[in-house]
Amino acid sequence: MNKKYQTIISTDAEKSGLVANWETLQRIFIRPENEASRIALVKYMEQILFGLHDFLQKHVGITREAGLRQLSDRFKNSAIGKHPEKKLADVIQGIIEDIAPHAVNVASPYFIGHMTSAIPFFMVHLATIVSALNQNVVKLETSKIVSVLERQVLAKIHRIIYDFSEDFYDFHIQRPESTLGSFVEDGTLANLTALWVARNRCFPPGPGFEGVEAEGVAAAFRAHQVDRCVILVSRLGHYSLEKACGVLGIGNGNIIPVDIDADNRMDIGALKREIAVIRNQSPGVKILAVVGIAGTTETGTVDPLGEIADVCRTHGVHFHVDAAWGGPVRLSDKYRTLLNGVEKADSVTIDGHKQFYMPMSCGMVYFKDPQAMDSVAYHAAYIARPGSVDLGIRSLVGSRSAVSLILGSAIEIMGRKGYALLIDHGIETAAAFAELIKRRPLFELVTPPELNILTYRIFPGPLKQEWRSTGLEKRKQLTRKLNHINITVQRMQREAGNSFVSRTTLRRSGADDIVVLRSVIMNPLTNMAVLTDILNEQEYLYHRLPET
Amino acid sequence: MNKKYQTIISTDAEKSGLVANWETLQRIFIRPENEASRIALVKYMEQILFGLHDFLQKHVGITREAGLRQLSDRFKNSAIGKHPEKKLADVIQGIIEDIAPHAVNVASPYFIGHMTSAIPFFMVHLATIVSALNQNVVKLETSKIVSVLERQVLAKIHRIIYDFSEDFYDFHIQRPESTLGSFVEDGTLANLTALWVARNRCFPPGPGFEGVEAEGVAAAFRAHQVDRCVILVSRLGHYSLEKACGVLGIGNGNIIPVDIDADNRMDIGALKREIAVIRNQSPGVKILAVVGIAGTTETGTVDPLGEIADVCRTHGVHFHVDAAWGGPVRLSDKYRTLLNGVEKADSVTIDGHKQFYMPMSCGMVYFKDPQAMDSVAYHAAYIARPGSVDLGIRSLVGSRSAVSLILGSAIEIMGRKGYALLIDHGIETAAAFAELIKRRPLFELVTPPELNILTYRIFPGPLKQEWRSTGLEKRKQLTRKLNHINITVQRMQREAGNSFVSRTTLRRSGADDIVVLRSVIMNPLTNMAVLTDILNEQEYLYHRLPET
Repeated sequence: MNKKYQTIISTDAEKSGLVANWETLQRIFIRPENEASRIALVKYMEQILFGLHDFLQKHVGITREAGLRQLSDRFKNSAIGKHPEKKLADVIQGIIEDIAPHAVNVASPYFIGHMTSAIPFFMVHLATIVSALNQNVVKLETSKIVSVLERQVLAKIHRIIYDFSEDFYDFHIQRPESTLGSFVEDGTLANLTALWVARNRCFPPGPGFEGVEAEGVAAAFRAHQVDRCVILVSRLGHYSLEKACGVLGIGNGNIIPVDIDADNRMDIGALKREIAVIRNQSPGVKILAVVGIAGTTETGTVDPLGEIADVCRTHGVHFHVDAAWGGPVRLSDKYRTLLNGVEKADSVTIDGHKQFYMPMSCGMVYFKDPQAMDSVAYHAAYIARPGSVDLGIRSLVGSRSAVSLILGSAIEIMGRKGYALLIDHGIETAAAFAELIKRRPLFELVTPPELNILTYRIFPGPLKQEWRSTGLEKRKQLTRKLNHINITVQRMQREAGNSFVSRTTLRRSGADDIVVLRSVIMNPLTNMAVLTDILNEQEYLYHRLPET
Repeated sequence: MNKKYQTIISTDAEKSGLVANWETLQRIFIRPENEASRIALVKYMEQILFGLHDFLQKHVGITREAGLRQLSDRFKNSAIGKHPEKKLADVIQGIIEDIAPHAVNVASPYFIGHMTSAIPFFMVHLATIVSALNQNVVKLETSKIVSVLERQVLAKIHRIIYDFSEDFYDFHIQRPESTLGSFVEDGTLANLTALWVARNRCFPPGPGFEGVEAEGVAAAFRAHQVDRCVILVSRLGHYSLEKACGVLGIGNGNIIPVDIDADNRMDIGALKREIAVIRNQSPGVKILAVVGIAGTTETGTVDPLGEIADVCRTHGVHFHVDAAWGGPVRLSDKYRTLLNGVEKADSVTIDGHKQFYMPMSCGMVYFKDPQAMDSVAYHAAYIARPGSVDLGIRSLVGSRSAVSLILGSAIEIMGRKGYALLIDHGIETAAAFAELIKRRPLFELVTPPELNILTYRIFPGPLKQEWRSTGLEKRKQLTRKLNHINITVQRMQREAGNSFVSRTTLRRSGADDIVVLRSVIMNPLTNMAVLTDILNEQEYLYHRLPET
């Protein structure tokens, strides 16, 4: 039996000179006994903490796609060597020297293109703790106190949204039968979980029918005499909602886009009309949910949540709010009212890796009714037995890490006020940026910021004049020209690698699609000087465009 | 505008004495400029690396549920303080002193109850790198080279499973239009992704029908003239398969459990009979997929994959293999043949946090056909535009972290041989443990290990004699008594906190449910001395049971 424990000396160790043997292998699983090993392991952490950071300081780092293709030629070997190719030290050095310089410096104040930003330094420590503890919160037997802690963190965030009474939280916070929310990988899966619950509550078991979860969508439609099932969301809804409907067997074509008003919010009149049409003219169509957005991905706008909630209550429809982006605004005393009505939602999505400034990735979904997730409960013989406190009973995912430890600790370190300062900075800097854009003749502010996201575009003065004095056909031509200019300048800026603003295409009913530049202000180091630099660079690049 | 940048001094700072202010806040986002701060941040990492470990050394750490309930009283505050409650140093100290001692020491060699184990030390460093870089691999603009690297890692693991030609990998590895696999949070979501793809390929678009993803399951059934859709899997299938069918709108009741043979593998005869019955007697029933298991959760057995593949090919049915546990066995030259036939699967699930020894959590799904995931592609206006190389186009999840960097680096550090040594140790130690159990009169080996999982139970000699000489009714009574004994001893051992073996209930058609003790041997420090200790403790506890 013990023969295999003998050191295996390979005679054909590859060029690395490293061999895998049992003794070395065992050593990497135990706490290093000698001081030299301990020092080495700490030194590696120092390199990770500061080495990576130093490299990333230099540029934003989104270079040409052609350059990327060349780079990708270095990653075409699909073979795994028999023996080790590298030691940890070499891996770290390789990542610092070869990977980090070609990664994207999302931490740069000049990176204002996506909902990814710098994170506080302590987040890396907290994430390291989670890996070192390596608990699996699917069940108590692999997490114990960490499951208890997760329930506390869920209650804290639930309270930010719903602000129920102290008694409510005292009762539910550690009650195994209550589920205030659930951690999942990201907002996409949070939205999926919310609509999964909504679907199951829409098609509950009844006489001769065991429920949609057991019998499937087709049987549910038959049992409930439904032909089709729809979800209403503004035209600015995130594509994850479509994906959720696709996955859940509802069909992504059954998302009904509701028109938006001039401020990019769901038009309540349009919502009511859509519902009236369905109710009056399509008896076989069931409305599964209405989704409101608190911080649309493209424009950062917030739907009129309170009004949507009232409509949903009138019609007895599940009201989900996608607050993946905007949720933490509730922590700001100054701006929390922007999300008024979110507390009326049946379910709410929030992302931890967005405005809670956590490392990738952490999605969360919350439910007003602590029994809502009973409709998606699963048990097994070896874990998650009925009555147990295993968090995996009501969860889309099975095995998962204890990211609640990161969020819970971050809340303690930041306090409400710390997060509020970040939120306020983003909203106020975006407002000031909008003013700056309006003052510069080359640009046009397209969607003013409600939170901390705005869109604008290059729209040179002469073309603005032309626009005003011309007809529909010519305007179409002008739009195409402007789109081309903005696509080109955005790409040039991205490829130069000094700063990054993203672009998207805004679609409005009855108007041509327009390409806009999109900026997301969440990095506390992004200030007006940085934003001025970014506009200056765009202006400089515009003037270098060949005449079209 | 700049007024808000002024330091905000709160007069009502809470008892912590900490206040959130803008200057401090900005500082935590930037690389520390002075040596003292750098030293402090490194010191915290040292505490995390070794402080946590020291505490965890002391016990396995699964105590009484009553004890847990008392503990949970400390986690009932749901309020978030206005000002910071703790500094990072306090948080780390708190976790080391108050959380870690009540967490579960999954790293202990005496923790052999679940598929969670010690991880090599370097994994914590790799996970820290991922957090420090904080790339979001949903799109190239927030990950760049890391997306390229992920494609390489996917190809390497794909090759472990399918072992296609060098040319195949050269062509597909970096080709944006090809998808060899996808990272998701865990095996549950990997199984879900596989069945999502299978569902969509089963109900493709056709004349007057846009496909199940667009129109939903009910419309798909109408278009394809199907009444019901089923998935066949052995009785030992993981509960995530049921959950996947529930989520996908197929209905978890439409999983047809296939009988197992005496070795706990899917009975091929039974599979063929089930299919024949469906094909001959139920014209409206469509078989969506057959799932084979490579390492069942409860007994670690491997279904006859090659034979199942042949049956699936005959009937044109999607063949999915849940190799969440067993996949890495392909890295062992000695035991790789145990998984023969996996290369015939249309899709395969593998977990990184299981036998790749990664930190929680990393699920993966692989497809034989690099075009299979086209059936689940999604685009948006601001990312994942058609033709882009964004990995988020074909993925269940949206934003996610670059765990491929951990796995890719781990493979380089371990080599095939390193992983093979771990796999071989687990399989051979489990075999030796089985022999040990057979030699001890108090125990009965229930399911011998095929890989590194086995089940056994306490079955005292006198009761064995009684069993042999008695009839059916008395045997039922004896089974109940044995179940009670095993439940009690497992709980006592868990609560004592020295070691942990899990328990499950095995269900066999035509026989009573029996409660068994389940052990999973994956920690390289779990040796025969440890396993002997564990049996000795169980024997000791058994003799302390009150007479029943």
